[in-house]
Amino acid sequence: MPSEFSLIDRFFARRAKAPAPRHDEAPLGIGDDCALIAPPAGHQLAISTDMLVEGRHFFADVDPHALGHKALAVNLSDLAAMGAKPHAFTLALALPRADEAWLEAFSDGMFALAERHDCALIGGDTTGGPLNICITVFGDVPNGAALRRDAARPGDDIYVSGVLGDARAALGAMRGEWPAPADAAPAWRRALERPEPRVALGMALCGVAHAALDISDGLAGDLMHILERSYMRATVDADAVPCSAAVRALPDAARRRCTLAGGDDYELCFTAPPSARESLVQIAMRLNVPLTRIGKIETSGSPDIAWRDGAGAPLSLTLQGFDHFHAD
Amino acid sequence: MPSEFSLIDRFFARRAKAPAPRHDEAPLGIGDDCALIAPPAGHQLAISTDMLVEGRHFFADVDPHALGHKALAVNLSDLAAMGAKPHAFTLALALPRADEAWLEAFSDGMFALAERHDCALIGGDTTGGPLNICITVFGDVPNGAALRRDAARPGDDIYVSGVLGDARAALGAMRGEWPAPADAAPAWRRALERPEPRVALGMALCGVAHAALDISDGLAGDLMHILERSYMRATVDADAVPCSAAVRALPDAARRRCTLAGGDDYELCFTAPPSARESLVQIAMRLNVPLTRIGKIETSGSPDIAWRDGAGAPLSLTLQGFDHFHAD
Repeated sequence: MPSEFSLIDRFFARRAKAPAPRHDEAPLGIGDDCALIAPPAGHQLAISTDMLVEGRHFFADVDPHALGHKALAVNLSDLAAMGAKPHAFTLALALPRADEAWLEAFSDGMFALAERHDCALIGGDTTGGPLNICITVFGDVPNGAALRRDAARPGDDIYVSGVLGDARAALGAMRGEWPAPADAAPAWRRALERPEPRVALGMALCGVAHAALDISDGLAGDLMHILERSYMRATVDADAVPCSAAVRALPDAARRRCTLAGGDDYELCFTAPPSARESLVQIAMRLNVPLTRIGKIETSGSPDIAWRDGAGAPLSLTLQGFDHFHAD
Repeated sequence: MPSEFSLIDRFFARRAKAPAPRHDEAPLGIGDDCALIAPPAGHQLAISTDMLVEGRHFFADVDPHALGHKALAVNLSDLAAMGAKPHAFTLALALPRADEAWLEAFSDGMFALAERHDCALIGGDTTGGPLNICITVFGDVPNGAALRRDAARPGDDIYVSGVLGDARAALGAMRGEWPAPADAAPAWRRALERPEPRVALGMALCGVAHAALDISDGLAGDLMHILERSYMRATVDADAVPCSAAVRALPDAARRRCTLAGGDDYELCFTAPPSARESLVQIAMRLNVPLTRIGKIETSGSPDIAWRDGAGAPLSLTLQGFDHFHAD
């Protein structure tokens, strides 16, 4: 079996690079004890780490190209949620065996996304063990401009980007909870396996939006994180939450499960003052990303979401965000 | 079973903190999509990531307090090898079950070391899965001052800190390869389970040493990384490599296996010009860390180590660094 070092060289190090030099520093990438980077003057580094485990975040037989894409995508989505520009990442990988075809597809999927976002692999670790992928990602954000969870204010509109629920719908179809319509199946599967992090949108929202996060565990649970950190109460129109036609065609309970508590959406949820509505229309058009107003931050107070249906009538929903320690 | 969020809150988030503010920025720690940090003016961030897997880097029955210590220690050792001052770290953790006693001991061991080095937990991820610990660590190093692997020069002395081989000797005793003398067993075990990263030494070596790394995979293999990156040839006196009295008492072949190819030492190996000898004596005394001269960088050329015994006679050693894809 090839050694750890030759595996790293063959599939990762040759495609890694020192990050682009900034200031008068000498950056340093893979091959030393540490990588060396610094944010541009007047910027901070936004840092996030995510660990993906077989059987929990992906199936054993997942297409490795898609897995390489998704492992980095979920991390870039965290940068997007802060409004940060991707700069670099590290990859730690536990592998049950050195399967070269698998590694080639995995690294191809990962680097294809990395290169689109000009995000350099600067370090890593490889070991034997049950399949586990841990990526830590670094982005630049101007001092004070990061989109934080604690910045929602009374009167803010609440928005989400794109459509929610396709990834959960794909999972439900794989589990036999509902059928996947033939014309929707590819889009559902793509949403589950190849989410596109909303990097450009996150950067465009800096200075426009107040609070933001990315929806990874379901809108209901994730919006609560904003409300908890901001100590705010919200009203949300459950039927205004945007979804694809195929998800809209599901029975009400299934649709709401997909759109409100599905998880794996990697869309942005954010709040912005009503004065920003025109700017947001412009941003949505320029980036070709749908932005939908789904509710309102009401007042400061004990964090809570009052759900309404499309007619404004109260809805009683018992929803839970995706929790990795519960069966799901 | 407690949910992921309550586990994180209980054992990690309450002891995490935003890193100390620097410049006029607002730092941000656990609880948002990303942490936000920046190095001080004129500094770079040194970044390293290590993944530890049960059965490969530690035994299933390891004391969780020791494991928490070691998981962070091996990362701080990478910062030490660059001469960087620890600042912050992220922790990603896959757990087969939410064992509260285990988590309490693990987090206690980790935070005890983190607090000694003023290193803040700023973010993380927790999931179910086979036990896996992935830490990414961040340190500050003045621009251009990092101790790199590619900086060895002809005529440099080669040094190692502390003693080598105790951790490998402990492993050998556990495997029945040799007995552990009663008076050495605790020290051997401590070397294996609670290595002390040479952080103060690494910082003191900035501006004094040329090339450096930490010895994690065995001196023979790790020194070759310096030679490969610097394109240099070296001569090393195998019998000058410092070791404890109990390791010295092992048969020659076992002793050399421990000291030269053992791994898990987490001592520093570095090169420095002969003009630095007096400074290094002062540093060793001030920090109370033995520094031993074991060889010399000879000339630039195809990377190679010529091993000698104490009498200067050539030694033919077939040694391999620890390689996580080979049985060891």
